Amino acid sequence: MNVPVTVALDVMGGDHGAAAIIEGANLIMKDYRVVTFLMVGDEAVIHPLLEIYPALKPKTTIIHTDEMIADDEKPSIALRRGRKSSMRLAIRAVKEGQAAGIVSAGNTGAMMAISKLVLQTLPGIDRPAIAGVMPSLKHDNIMLDLGANIHCDASNLFEFAAMGDAFARALLGRENPTIGLLNVGSEDIKGPEAVQNAAAMLQEEDCPINFHGFIEGNDITRGIVDVIVTDGFTGNIALKTIEGTAGMFAGFLKEGLKTAPIWVRMGALIAKQGLENVKRRIDPREYNGAMFIGLNGIVVKSHGGSDAYGHACAIEKAVRLAQFDINRKIIEELAATSYPGFDLEDALGETELLPKGLDQDE
Amino acid sequence: MNVPVTVALDVMGGDHGAAAIIEGANLIMKDYRVVTFLMVGDEAVIHPLLEIYPALKPKTTIIHTDEMIADDEKPSIALRRGRKSSMRLAIRAVKEGQAAGIVSAGNTGAMMAISKLVLQTLPGIDRPAIAGVMPSLKHDNIMLDLGANIHCDASNLFEFAAMGDAFARALLGRENPTIGLLNVGSEDIKGPEAVQNAAAMLQEEDCPINFHGFIEGNDITRGIVDVIVTDGFTGNIALKTIEGTAGMFAGFLKEGLKTAPIWVRMGALIAKQGLENVKRRIDPREYNGAMFIGLNGIVVKSHGGSDAYGHACAIEKAVRLAQFDINRKIIEELAATSYPGFDLEDALGETELLPKGLDQDE
Repeated sequence: MNVPVTVALDVMGGDHGAAAIIEGANLIMKDYRVVTFLMVGDEAVIHPLLEIYPALKPKTTIIHTDEMIADDEKPSIALRRGRKSSMRLAIRAVKEGQAAGIVSAGNTGAMMAISKLVLQTLPGIDRPAIAGVMPSLKHDNIMLDLGANIHCDASNLFEFAAMGDAFARALLGRENPTIGLLNVGSEDIKGPEAVQNAAAMLQEEDCPINFHGFIEGNDITRGIVDVIVTDGFTGNIALKTIEGTAGMFAGFLKEGLKTAPIWVRMGALIAKQGLENVKRRIDPREYNGAMFIGLNGIVVKSHGGSDAYGHACAIEKAVRLAQFDINRKIIEELAATSYPGFDLEDALGETELLPKGLDQDE
Repeated sequence: MNVPVTVALDVMGGDHGAAAIIEGANLIMKDYRVVTFLMVGDEAVIHPLLEIYPALKPKTTIIHTDEMIADDEKPSIALRRGRKSSMRLAIRAVKEGQAAGIVSAGNTGAMMAISKLVLQTLPGIDRPAIAGVMPSLKHDNIMLDLGANIHCDASNLFEFAAMGDAFARALLGRENPTIGLLNVGSEDIKGPEAVQNAAAMLQEEDCPINFHGFIEGNDITRGIVDVIVTDGFTGNIALKTIEGTAGMFAGFLKEGLKTAPIWVRMGALIAKQGLENVKRRIDPREYNGAMFIGLNGIVVKSHGGSDAYGHACAIEKAVRLAQFDINRKIIEELAATSYPGFDLEDALGETELLPKGLDQDE
């Protein structure tokens, strides 16, 4: 898409520092020629790095600060002390309309706390959630919440379903996304009350959400729904269990081949391309970029341990969400789902949705 | 081990019927020559099947019934109506000392409900749990609860830790098993109150449990602890997420090779042995046999969809748990952990532990 978008980058977060994030920004230049960047961080660090990427340099504006939020800083402390931190200034840039979205690889808790304070939640949204794109046998899916809310009631889960629906339309291009509620499957144990009540809300006749019903843990990677809805505790554990299991499988494969007879290893060498294809399909870098949704602004968290390619995937998500005007879609979705007591005009009131329209409104 | 053990088999459960279960029993005869079976089910079905296995036949006693509990029967109904069902009679055989343990591939909820009623919980145990053996990069681990208890308080989780400790000693031969509490990792979100309070109990100075601390979803398959403790909702979802992810990986591998150029497929064919090794290490059949622990009797649930080999693995678990006198170990463990208000002699009172001692007490 060729809708111009400016993305604010907190270049001070992440294990591999500004170098990896700036290289990541450079990587998406090929596919997104109309994207520009607002890089927030230490000028003395950013300048020499930009010299390496002549195509990126003219598309970049720098906001200088040498303050940053440490990875182990408590969110409450970060909120008070981090007013001039690279993360806060980058988030403020979204609030002030200088950027359509913000990407950071820094402290997750601080990022959520600052985003809530600065951007606030969307009208009608009680709790923002963390959403991620997950691999499956069929196609990529959306899962939320991945860790923002440990305890969720039925209304929270319902909100996640509505937001996930808008997300699957925007990011994955699904026309009528199916929504599954993560639960345990046995007949006798129907699962927690919040999950049951959320199902009842989603089953109501006038609810336009395409509710598939309950799904179980093994269904996440089978791809039987487009959106997997769960509380932040379960979602976080499921997400990391998938990561861990993929890692175990890869480890067994490596180990199994290392100790195998020479002809097996030769065969594996020949089959390498096939194995690489598999590896690519579950490459965690492709799935990098967890989105904080339900906020009045586009906020994407890149994994702290990501390399440049991983950061590029996260930045690309922010660009695409801005181009799709995701927050307007979420609001429209909430209005359409006749979310109890929700009135779109009423809810919007004085609120100006971020990002502001971009090109597609013209 | 050569401790004689009789296992009661509910041969009416499971998708593949009595044939798969009886073949499974026959499979373990080679390694467990002193094991005998009490097969509960329709004589007319069992007799001809036993004719196929001449070594198994003389080791088998049949208890005839043609009643069974359907897979979709509600536990409450199964409790009332299923008095002459194969499952109930098999569980009763343990209560009456005719068998050291029972294996069924039938209705999980009914099995838990009947087991609780007939065998009752161990002294000092509030809630039985479902425990399973899980694969990891390092070695097999125990995870519990896998679905018996949706809501757990700190005491429940503490009990699971003590039972898991005894289990890892008995079944996996770990000398001083490490226990991890499943939680979300980020600094700011410390997880649910029950999990935090359980951690506090496990950290108390006089608690002899080797508490590792919190672990995250990706640590399950990394094998950094011997026992993973969590509530039944999260445990069930994590277990099934592992199954699903392994299935996705295998699916990608198959698909990736199918569409690969001919030389890649030839290489894969040569490397087949290496791939088979990997497959074996995550063969769900090896991990079949979820154990209902905290009951005064050994109860092992075999997966309904298992083939004979899977059932054999489940039956083997029941044999080994009986030979290890697992329930006595759990009780001793609970006494040793100074579980608040727990007095071994007091708790045992009139209770006679099942199975009764077997050979190792003589």
